[in-house]
Amino acid sequence: MAEIPADHPRHDSLVTRHRIEAGVEKGITSKQGLVAQGRGEAFDYLLGEETIPSADNAERVAAAYLLLAEHPVLSVNGNVAALVPGEVVALAEVVGADVEVNLFNRTAERMEAIAEHLREHGAQDVKGLEADARIPGLEHERAKVDRDGIYDADVVLVPLEDGDRAEALAKMGKTELVIDLNPMSRSAQSAAVPVVDNIIRALPSITEHARDLRDASRKELEEIVAGFDREAALEAAEKRIREGDLD
Amino acid sequence: MAEIPADHPRHDSLVTRHRIEAGVEKGITSKQGLVAQGRGEAFDYLLGEETIPSADNAERVAAAYLLLAEHPVLSVNGNVAALVPGEVVALAEVVGADVEVNLFNRTAERMEAIAEHLREHGAQDVKGLEADARIPGLEHERAKVDRDGIYDADVVLVPLEDGDRAEALAKMGKTELVIDLNPMSRSAQSAAVPVVDNIIRALPSITEHARDLRDASRKELEEIVAGFDREAALEAAEKRIREGDLD
Repeated sequence: MAEIPADHPRHDSLVTRHRIEAGVEKGITSKQGLVAQGRGEAFDYLLGEETIPSADNAERVAAAYLLLAEHPVLSVNGNVAALVPGEVVALAEVVGADVEVNLFNRTAERMEAIAEHLREHGAQDVKGLEADARIPGLEHERAKVDRDGIYDADVVLVPLEDGDRAEALAKMGKTELVIDLNPMSRSAQSAAVPVVDNIIRALPSITEHARDLRDASRKELEEIVAGFDREAALEAAEKRIREGDLD
Repeated sequence: MAEIPADHPRHDSLVTRHRIEAGVEKGITSKQGLVAQGRGEAFDYLLGEETIPSADNAERVAAAYLLLAEHPVLSVNGNVAALVPGEVVALAEVVGADVEVNLFNRTAERMEAIAEHLREHGAQDVKGLEADARIPGLEHERAKVDRDGIYDADVVLVPLEDGDRAEALAKMGKTELVIDLNPMSRSAQSAAVPVVDNIIRALPSITEHARDLRDASRKELEEIVAGFDREAALEAAEKRIREGDLD
């Protein structure tokens, strides 16, 4: 990859574009993934391409949920794998989560390409390939999950998830942490913790908060989680998108 | 193409997605085109996926400009060709405009695939393949135009144009009519007439206005053009995007 100086004003945007392009070359990012990337770019542009305070707070709450979980799982799709493979592995290590690949358009080739890409970035055990359980209420291909992965999880981080799956996972009683740049999306609306932020910024931030909170007591973590107001977080993000930065 | 009922609530969105996918299959739509499509979807979502009154007015003004022009040219890129090939041909016929292909990522294969696609939709003479003139101030490949096409034009309709080219064309003294869903983009900001609308709705609307105005006098057309306030049009679009529909 051509080196992009860290102080380049469009650094994040250029890195993102490069990783998505490379994801297409590797068979990781789908056509629908490219369109979804564009939707994200537009919302991020309106957010000011920065982590707003309410998102940073949601990232701290997400970290607390992951640390409290009995069995946390990080769900990974094509864009997540292309954009933040190392960051997914780092977060999984800090909070002791499983990593599971789940695709909107599932093919054996893409599943394997993504699993391999995650392994190249240090993932030990990539779930999702067994597909020996089903999420109720979804059509066949999109319902596939691992029995000892998402099916068994109590807390699932679902970045860039599609709305149907987000709703179906919530109905199964799982605590969903959703990263989505559109606060009006069904994914964000159905999440216990909607993180309205670019995944490029959100994942390292959740990991950093998790490192901060690693030595916190269960009681402290439970207080952080109990104090979270998801409606307020969604409203703050929509307000920023609608009204812009008023500073 | 599978028939999508006209009264389907997501009709336009489904048709758009189908045409873009078909464009990829035919080598018309690029990877960057798919990302751009996603950005457009997000802005259209915020606009309420409808032609707002200020956009309809801009479409009428664009029609008047095209009818007044000595040599109007409709510039076509990969997404425009994929999404509205027949609509481009229809508008060109009504206002007597040339159709010219211009790509951000120009390759001989894509140029030919797009020209052929337009011919299949009834285009008689597709310009852009000669590339015997240059737009000043742009790097080599993106500067290429036809001498008897965009280079010679007085009025150019540039839908979904990139910012650099839009600014360079404006500097050449051409009257630019830009269709762009982001009113804050450099393309929209540098246009004589920024049309903030989905191209799927905008092109048929401009054609309809042109049919209405075909028998208008030169004086009437000049009054329509003179009465247009581009700043107000941009502000109305941004207001809708930021604040939503307050009806």
